[in-house]
Amino acid sequence: MLHLKFSDGLIPVIVQDAQSKDVLMMAWANEEAVRLTRESGFAHYFSRSRKKLWKKGEESGHFQKVLRILTDCDEDCLVYEVEQTGAACHTGYRSCFYRTLDGTVVDTKVFDPEQVYGKKGH
Amino acid sequence: MLHLKFSDGLIPVIVQDAQSKDVLMMAWANEEAVRLTRESGFAHYFSRSRKKLWKKGEESGHFQKVLRILTDCDEDCLVYEVEQTGAACHTGYRSCFYRTLDGTVVDTKVFDPEQVYGKKGH
Repeated sequence: MLHLKFSDGLIPVIVQDAQSKDVLMMAWANEEAVRLTRESGFAHYFSRSRKKLWKKGEESGHFQKVLRILTDCDEDCLVYEVEQTGAACHTGYRSCFYRTLDGTVVDTKVFDPEQVYGKKGH
Repeated sequence: MLHLKFSDGLIPVIVQDAQSKDVLMMAWANEEAVRLTRESGFAHYFSRSRKKLWKKGEESGHFQKVLRILTDCDEDCLVYEVEQTGAACHTGYRSCFYRTLDGTVVDTKVFDPEQVYGKKGH
């Protein structure tokens, strides 16, 4: 087992669709989130804004089954290779990276956020 | 043009091979690094440890030609889709994410770091 480096208790996680290899999102994990991800097989993160652990899909049902976790040469960043239920992005796009820098949309909307999250948004 | 959000002047950049779609590395950019990347078409970053701008490949020759830049829903993370010369990782592996959490190597070494960087390492 490698010794991961957490910075202020957190490590960045790149989330990649195991099949399409699209980058779906980027989030942060603390040690407990990594442990819960390994134990449960489902992606857990730590929300910096809400300052709490969360399981992807707990509200939307859009869980991420984690097939493999990779780490980088410095052991300070992770890749979760996942099977994504529904979509990764709360906007309804499959990937959070659905736009180029000029705002051009390059991904497809797969759900209506109002129906999934209700009118309050996420 | 979207308005990117920098945190302490920096934005995380996920680097993805445009052809294989492998995640090659993760690095940080400041506003100048993003500007230089867009202007030159080659990946630039900001080193947090050396506190300076750097162009990927400036020492190794392993440049990254940036074909497209994507941003996420929050506009606080980027993906550089690149054509990688040589390898992304200073260890000689094509991707920095060459190991699973238990240390199993899942990538292929494509160069000898001593020959590219000399004995001092990087």
